Amino acid sequence: MKTKPLFIEHYLLPTCNGEITTMSFLQDVVDILLQYVVKSFDRSTKVIDFHYPNELLQEYNWELADQPQTLEEILLNCRTTLKYAIKTGHPRYFNQLSTGLDMVGLAADWLTSAANTNMFTYEIAPVFVLLEYVTLRKMREMVGWPGGCGDGIFSPGGAISNMYAMLIARFKMFPEVKEKGMAAIPRLVAFTSEHSHFSVKKGAAALGIGTDSVILIRCDERGKMIPSDLERRIVEAKQKGFVPFLVSATAGTTVYGAFDPLIAIADICKKYKIWMHVDGAWGGGLLMSRKHKWKLNGIERANSVTWNPHKMMGVPLQCSALLVREEGLMQSCNQMHASYLFQQDKHYDLSYDTGDKALQCGRHVDVFKLWLMWRAKGTTGFEAQIDKCLELAEYLYNKIKNREGYEMPQHTNVCFWYIPPSLRGMENSEERTSRLMKVAPVIKARMMEYGTTMVSYQPLGDKVNFFRMVISNPAATHQDIDFLIDEIERLGQDL
Amino acid sequence: MKTKPLFIEHYLLPTCNGEITTMSFLQDVVDILLQYVVKSFDRSTKVIDFHYPNELLQEYNWELADQPQTLEEILLNCRTTLKYAIKTGHPRYFNQLSTGLDMVGLAADWLTSAANTNMFTYEIAPVFVLLEYVTLRKMREMVGWPGGCGDGIFSPGGAISNMYAMLIARFKMFPEVKEKGMAAIPRLVAFTSEHSHFSVKKGAAALGIGTDSVILIRCDERGKMIPSDLERRIVEAKQKGFVPFLVSATAGTTVYGAFDPLIAIADICKKYKIWMHVDGAWGGGLLMSRKHKWKLNGIERANSVTWNPHKMMGVPLQCSALLVREEGLMQSCNQMHASYLFQQDKHYDLSYDTGDKALQCGRHVDVFKLWLMWRAKGTTGFEAQIDKCLELAEYLYNKIKNREGYEMPQHTNVCFWYIPPSLRGMENSEERTSRLMKVAPVIKARMMEYGTTMVSYQPLGDKVNFFRMVISNPAATHQDIDFLIDEIERLGQDL
Repeated sequence: MKTKPLFIEHYLLPTCNGEITTMSFLQDVVDILLQYVVKSFDRSTKVIDFHYPNELLQEYNWELADQPQTLEEILLNCRTTLKYAIKTGHPRYFNQLSTGLDMVGLAADWLTSAANTNMFTYEIAPVFVLLEYVTLRKMREMVGWPGGCGDGIFSPGGAISNMYAMLIARFKMFPEVKEKGMAAIPRLVAFTSEHSHFSVKKGAAALGIGTDSVILIRCDERGKMIPSDLERRIVEAKQKGFVPFLVSATAGTTVYGAFDPLIAIADICKKYKIWMHVDGAWGGGLLMSRKHKWKLNGIERANSVTWNPHKMMGVPLQCSALLVREEGLMQSCNQMHASYLFQQDKHYDLSYDTGDKALQCGRHVDVFKLWLMWRAKGTTGFEAQIDKCLELAEYLYNKIKNREGYEMPQHTNVCFWYIPPSLRGMENSEERTSRLMKVAPVIKARMMEYGTTMVSYQPLGDKVNFFRMVISNPAATHQDIDFLIDEIERLGQDL
Repeated sequence: MKTKPLFIEHYLLPTCNGEITTMSFLQDVVDILLQYVVKSFDRSTKVIDFHYPNELLQEYNWELADQPQTLEEILLNCRTTLKYAIKTGHPRYFNQLSTGLDMVGLAADWLTSAANTNMFTYEIAPVFVLLEYVTLRKMREMVGWPGGCGDGIFSPGGAISNMYAMLIARFKMFPEVKEKGMAAIPRLVAFTSEHSHFSVKKGAAALGIGTDSVILIRCDERGKMIPSDLERRIVEAKQKGFVPFLVSATAGTTVYGAFDPLIAIADICKKYKIWMHVDGAWGGGLLMSRKHKWKLNGIERANSVTWNPHKMMGVPLQCSALLVREEGLMQSCNQMHASYLFQQDKHYDLSYDTGDKALQCGRHVDVFKLWLMWRAKGTTGFEAQIDKCLELAEYLYNKIKNREGYEMPQHTNVCFWYIPPSLRGMENSEERTSRLMKVAPVIKARMMEYGTTMVSYQPLGDKVNFFRMVISNPAATHQDIDFLIDEIERLGQDL
């Protein structure tokens, strides 16, 4: 097979007698992938083989043509794509909240692709619909809703989950909005902390609420929402004649990893009858840990929760759950009764046709990889994995807190400045600030060019660029943390 | 390895020396998947091994537990999941607009899972961001926009793509809506045909426009929007003081497969200065066919286009593109400038950080499977595949149009009633209608119980339940069409 310059398409299934070619083609691809997977965990390989966009466009012919390609060309496409890919499973890849590559998760994603179906009806996704039911119920149990009761859905990411929460909260208060639109209801306002994820504003813009109606509540120095400021702003909004409809508290902010005080926020939401949403996209995973779940105390009082297993739990992208305490609300809010999908005269229990809860029509199967990983690890395995990541963060924190050349604004996510020798001992001044601002971007660019590690940086409020170290990759060890620190020093000492 | 009752998790990567166990585990899973794939195309296997939800819940222990499972158990989970899965690649699976299982697409999806990254920045998805750029440009070229200029994104399905179009159209007309919300702008109205996809209404509900503001335009007997009715309703809305902001024309309606007259609609949109969106989720694929693309004449005048390669082009789920003619508008509409992701002091060309165009923050890589399939088939290969599906639809049409026991309201998607012998010759009456209404659901339930084939049915307007046959699976042949017809007769003749 490999010797003939054949157009691969013409010899694969469903072509007649295509079994052998198909098996051999898929096996060839799998061999390339297995090599890549093993290399991803090898500390002697680069995290990234960086090329600037224009260089990368010229390195290979990526264009689409009229004519088909041969088997060899298709395999070369795969190898080339992986050559320039970021090894997101590499033990020294710390760049995002989603890192790592779980082997059972990967296998499950491969199965999902082979099953190639759609979540809208039981008819075409019987097992996956049941597994979504089982898994969401378990997640709701861990949130603390009695018997795991309630509702939910896997959505395409935390931003969409947060948007769902806002959509449902609005519908709960003013169901007429579905038909009549925002024109028919009073001016709504939502509240979230100044450190919350930008998706709350994005959602408000999309839903016709407007970003001006998202009131940002002040945070303490650790990035937690200040409840007294929340209450003050709610009262103020009501005095202006606006209707507070949603508080989005954050369990694990994106930059500092801070947990808003959920109990105090729940009390305020109860007092003013406002929907309480908890954006636990990042921090939700701690519910798996007996040691750390106290940080989410009060989440059981939320009306809805976003929880992304593709972050702290290391499930392959994408896997985000929105959980809703009141059953049936999602359905009433979103259903349109498409008669070509949700026929009412089917021969099975129609409550398993869950697609009309969603904003999407077709919906990718995101549950199977989480479910299979959960079976493989057990709850205790997730717990151990998460505890280990938090232990590593603590190790990093202790390592640098007294080390020369580091300053640290926060804990949990470990956020810090590297201060190059030339700036050490220099008093706070405009010059120091403006030079410090340039340190992290230069070190990051050098990291990418050497390809040795990746970590994120950003400014926040009045704080100039600092590194944000996050550890969600179970492959990372103390040695990798040591490496990161040494590498930052190596790359930054001349700045 | 297989003989020890090991908790699989403890022996896989990133565990020390986990390479061999990992390779052998992934290979075991791949072997299960390869068997499933080959069986999917085997006409002697069932399309579905149907069980009612309660039965399926009892067939196997699907619950999540505290303790981990062994390798053998994990593999059994995979086998069991596939045992009850619908074989969506089976040559006799006609149930949805998305059918078939493309081998190159599957391989590409497996690679996407192994690469496990996120589309928000070039930094962490360099190749995939470039491939999205290359592929969307090519798709815009095929739409007919000069040089493929414009903008776009892959979104999680056609419903979300349509919602994007509505969001962007609203922003184009009233950019202040982003900050001020719907309260600050006039009452908007959108227009779409009575046969359009329900996602237009779903989007309007979500965006705070309200479903009452989606005006449904009448269709002719073939399901095409009647332009004179559109114009009349636009004038009427303006007279009431409403602001028409969007016409969503459909290229390939869900049930009838009808193509709205795009040129006439474009003329009306131009005259009244209204954003013209074309929902080509289903019909967009015909742009690949020199023989059939005339059905979309006028699409080049649209402001935005939804096109789902996961439907007519057979790309694995999910793969939906939204294309926008004006560059930069998506970015202005959706951007929130998150400083932790879209740092302005990065060392590469920031125009490749495309994530802030999206409503999502994290975004799954949906482009690679389309790109690799396009490389493998070439444009000509997609064309041949699509032409073949349309030829099969014509074959079916010709086969049943004069056959006793069938009545057909429409062409393209082939929609028809099977009339059992007991109803033949009976005059139109309430009794006939009410009996005919029950025929398709019973035949469908029997199909699923026998597991031999699957095809969709639905009522529409004053038409009681009829079959909607759609062919997007390149595995289907004339023989499978013959089989379907015979099977319907076999299962329905006693009704």
